[in-house]
Amino acid sequence: MDENVYLEFAHRVRFTRGVFAPSNPMLRDVLVCKAPSSRPKLLAVVDQGLVEARPELQREIESYFGKYADLLPELVGFRALPGGEVIKNDLSLLEGLLGDLNRLGIDRRSYVMAIGGGALLDTVGFAASVTHRGVRLIRLPTTTLAQADSGVGVKNGVNMFGKKNFIGSFAVPQAVVNDLDFLETLSDRDWRCGLAEAVKVALLKDAGFYESIAKLRSRLVQRDAGAADTVWQRSAELHLQHICRSPEDGGGGDPFESKSARPLDLGHWAAHQLESLSHYELRHGEAVAIGLALDTLYATHVGLLDPAVGQHIHQLLRGLGFALTHPALQHPGLLEGIEAFREHLGGNLTITLPRGVGDPVEVHEIDLALMNRCAQELSHAPTGSTISAG
Amino acid sequence: MDENVYLEFAHRVRFTRGVFAPSNPMLRDVLVCKAPSSRPKLLAVVDQGLVEARPELQREIESYFGKYADLLPELVGFRALPGGEVIKNDLSLLEGLLGDLNRLGIDRRSYVMAIGGGALLDTVGFAASVTHRGVRLIRLPTTTLAQADSGVGVKNGVNMFGKKNFIGSFAVPQAVVNDLDFLETLSDRDWRCGLAEAVKVALLKDAGFYESIAKLRSRLVQRDAGAADTVWQRSAELHLQHICRSPEDGGGGDPFESKSARPLDLGHWAAHQLESLSHYELRHGEAVAIGLALDTLYATHVGLLDPAVGQHIHQLLRGLGFALTHPALQHPGLLEGIEAFREHLGGNLTITLPRGVGDPVEVHEIDLALMNRCAQELSHAPTGSTISAG
Repeated sequence: MDENVYLEFAHRVRFTRGVFAPSNPMLRDVLVCKAPSSRPKLLAVVDQGLVEARPELQREIESYFGKYADLLPELVGFRALPGGEVIKNDLSLLEGLLGDLNRLGIDRRSYVMAIGGGALLDTVGFAASVTHRGVRLIRLPTTTLAQADSGVGVKNGVNMFGKKNFIGSFAVPQAVVNDLDFLETLSDRDWRCGLAEAVKVALLKDAGFYESIAKLRSRLVQRDAGAADTVWQRSAELHLQHICRSPEDGGGGDPFESKSARPLDLGHWAAHQLESLSHYELRHGEAVAIGLALDTLYATHVGLLDPAVGQHIHQLLRGLGFALTHPALQHPGLLEGIEAFREHLGGNLTITLPRGVGDPVEVHEIDLALMNRCAQELSHAPTGSTISAG
Repeated sequence: MDENVYLEFAHRVRFTRGVFAPSNPMLRDVLVCKAPSSRPKLLAVVDQGLVEARPELQREIESYFGKYADLLPELVGFRALPGGEVIKNDLSLLEGLLGDLNRLGIDRRSYVMAIGGGALLDTVGFAASVTHRGVRLIRLPTTTLAQADSGVGVKNGVNMFGKKNFIGSFAVPQAVVNDLDFLETLSDRDWRCGLAEAVKVALLKDAGFYESIAKLRSRLVQRDAGAADTVWQRSAELHLQHICRSPEDGGGGDPFESKSARPLDLGHWAAHQLESLSHYELRHGEAVAIGLALDTLYATHVGLLDPAVGQHIHQLLRGLGFALTHPALQHPGLLEGIEAFREHLGGNLTITLPRGVGDPVEVHEIDLALMNRCAQELSHAPTGSTISAG
């Protein structure tokens, strides 16, 4: 008596500035209650660092919800929680948040609005996805990484047993609202991180976008908003299309990752391991830049990638301000990242490598000795190109 | 840049006998590994009561996986856990299970096979659904309730903060394999419980099935397997079709319950509350029978349902062996079940009532004073019909 289960979810991703300005209708439009007879509730959960950097934020949010009281959910709480891996590692923070959702009577028509970087969005999203089997989540990513990449995704997770994202869920958020103004308060180091994911998705999906990033390089280094905004938006769009579209339309056709490949995770096996080996001294975007450089170097050595293209990729990443070396590249545990990457998905190993710009290829075997030599080579070439163009 | 996320899952529900008999291919067929180069793992999690009642079960399972070693996942563990609300209430059991999944290296291609009643399936299914964002779940329901109803569903959950299913997930299991042999060891009281859900789904979906149950009544009271098997299978099929099919094809069109109605939950607002008020002295099926009787009585009093039909429903439930009364019906907290039911789904109150056999109707208001009088009436009429036919 087999049947099929079909599901369809709208995945709304929007960019704006000044999201809580009284005149900005974007948030109102995604939150507007269609059945005002039973007004849902909304809990705002905000990154503590952001609350300290923008102490007026709570008042702005309260004013916004006050102004549109007849249309919007009832703002029933404002919670500040630490961002970064702390929130993903400390399960008592997750439990406390679940307790808040219970005490405030957040039901399946109610909303949780998460404002912060990727780690906070991951944790709050997980709490929302399991409460009453799923309450509505609004994501307001506040970092370049989260706006250009992870905030667009349909994944949530926290760490357990020392394993990244050991516990998590797939769930399509009600809406992702990217306020570009949040990015202005980031340090240069944090701001740069999103560029690594933009280069990654360009290498995978869009040679034209890669060329744009290269052309905009010096403006990006100066954090020129006009240049950067186009990069964040195109990066988010390419990630979104990959998640939602079928392979015939250029997507992955696998939003909840039931297959054994993660084609968006170019350079990520090494990035995850480098973050961990550096005790998170390396930011995710910095680790992704090194991971991209490493897999690019490996791809040239196995003859998949033209060395001139590999050299251009290294130069672009360096030109954007990334150091492509780190002592952790010499750590004997680096290559364990390949097995950890396989285990999270299960099944056969599948690693995506660049064959050209906008032209990825999946491989199922990695020459570990050669990969180790590439890591050593990269770690000993702190400046200048590692790849001699042919 | 909005897009849509589309998902499709096969939902396999099968009935058999002697599922671990070496000659029975059913489990082998749903588990067979398509890429035997990387053999996935399987952890069996079994209800402790069942292990005690069938001490040979572990050996049978080991033999089955041994016999088909070249085709099946590797059986890497066998865990016994308590069934009933204990497993849903004690979060340390959930944590212990997650620890097992971690230690055994269960990855997203691996399987968890849960063998037990609804509460065990709910908890193990939740653990499986959040580990690595979802490992494969095989359900082997061992009670009439779970085979005829809950095991077919796509819901998992555990209790937290004293609230039933406060934490949970929607996930389509890899397969549901109902071994009718498991039902033979149940007590009469447990065995009967599934009949309440069968009557419920018949009242909602299929007047012909309702007539069959009425005709088979005396054979069902004697636990005649030939009669009962058809009831469990038809009940499971109707639940499955409701979950998977669109409203045009007689289904609910809402597998992950994003709408505000739960049309399968006839009689369940009272059932949940009666279970809790009786401190789980009432079994779920017994509480559902009382809940159906109560909502039937209410439906006749508000003029929705012909009293003769209401009387027939009461007589059928009593004839199947259910007591339609309980001291908890007089508890002042009973009616709070209506608000709890609304809160779990959020939005407006939606209660399904019978307008006739196979003809449900959704109402958004309940006359609490009248419902209270119905509860009193039912609690004072321990035998014979509560409804005088017109």
